[in-house]
Amino acid sequence: MIPDPERTYPVPSVRRLPIYLSLLRRLRAAGLEAVSSTKIAEELKLTGIQVRKDLAMTGIVGRPKVGHSIHELIEHIESFLGWDRPQNAFLVGVGHLGTALLGYKGFAQESLNIVATFDNSPHKIGKKILGREVYPMEMFPTMAAKQEIRIAILTVPARVAQETTDVLVGSGIRGIWNFAPIQLSVPDDVIVEDVSLSSSLAVLSQKLNHRP
Amino acid sequence: MIPDPERTYPVPSVRRLPIYLSLLRRLRAAGLEAVSSTKIAEELKLTGIQVRKDLAMTGIVGRPKVGHSIHELIEHIESFLGWDRPQNAFLVGVGHLGTALLGYKGFAQESLNIVATFDNSPHKIGKKILGREVYPMEMFPTMAAKQEIRIAILTVPARVAQETTDVLVGSGIRGIWNFAPIQLSVPDDVIVEDVSLSSSLAVLSQKLNHRP
Repeated sequence: MIPDPERTYPVPSVRRLPIYLSLLRRLRAAGLEAVSSTKIAEELKLTGIQVRKDLAMTGIVGRPKVGHSIHELIEHIESFLGWDRPQNAFLVGVGHLGTALLGYKGFAQESLNIVATFDNSPHKIGKKILGREVYPMEMFPTMAAKQEIRIAILTVPARVAQETTDVLVGSGIRGIWNFAPIQLSVPDDVIVEDVSLSSSLAVLSQKLNHRP
Repeated sequence: MIPDPERTYPVPSVRRLPIYLSLLRRLRAAGLEAVSSTKIAEELKLTGIQVRKDLAMTGIVGRPKVGHSIHELIEHIESFLGWDRPQNAFLVGVGHLGTALLGYKGFAQESLNIVATFDNSPHKIGKKILGREVYPMEMFPTMAAKQEIRIAILTVPARVAQETTDVLVGSGIRGIWNFAPIQLSVPDDVIVEDVSLSSSLAVLSQKLNHRP
């Protein structure tokens, strides 16, 4: 099965793919060459049906009993996510959260490559923060066009998030990873993925509050 | 309808509650006193059915045509989440991400109150970071017991996340907000809510990769 570009895929399944990748890389590092979906399910406390459905989504053909080649599984998942080639991104807003993301080591395995950062503060512009130079926001459009950047990581305060987004969209950005606690308005062809800390905290709070 | 402590609630609905809260507070600040579920749905680009279902989950009784009292809606949602009283928490791991969370202003509205922070680094212990003193990890159990802390925010590196979790659980922590990119093992009565940056990035990458 070849993944169909026109299809939409179930978000919970897509969210599980990095968890599979992380397990598969550990198994590969331990010297294993093949693994069954049943074994994957056991390790990750999922059902076998979930695992088979998730893997099928990426175009992997089931091989009951024989097991899957770990190498092929990793290749399929990475290719499905586009993580088989570098994803260059600009980061906008070099506060505490922006700096935390710059320092996050996990992005290498997701092929995310933050090539430049932007801020409006005169105290930050021109400095290097964790190895990346901070440019003034005015330079975003030219630099994004020149380097053909399609992904931006948005870590500005909520009150300037929409106006900043308008600049990003006008500069050819097609995917925004949004950490600002606000619902952004963008044209239909721009993808926004929100990391909502409030929503995550709500799930924890509600469960603690309704503990049987 | 009174929310039932034995029930489990749909996670997507719970995740939307802070978004309702944020809108309702904005409407209240603008001087409004009542709002219909249809208006809420319009503002948040949801369906009316979704909004009515989500609000009913918190025990709010539908009032077609009349609209809801904004004040009552806010009270119901806050009480459902336990956000109507302070939630004291300890933060463990004062790196870039931990510091970012300490500096995050949104937590006040979610009643989350980070009362102390912990780290193992001699360079950090005893310092104040954004107004909170950093204590050595050895002091966690005694301080958690004394202050009756049930929530911990975990922002340590993945390689020490499980051993740290064991200390938290042994110290009476019942809810862990986990930012470490690892699946934690905890007893059944401990709730873990993961903020998985990889999973969120996977959703963005996949959509960009399969753009029609």
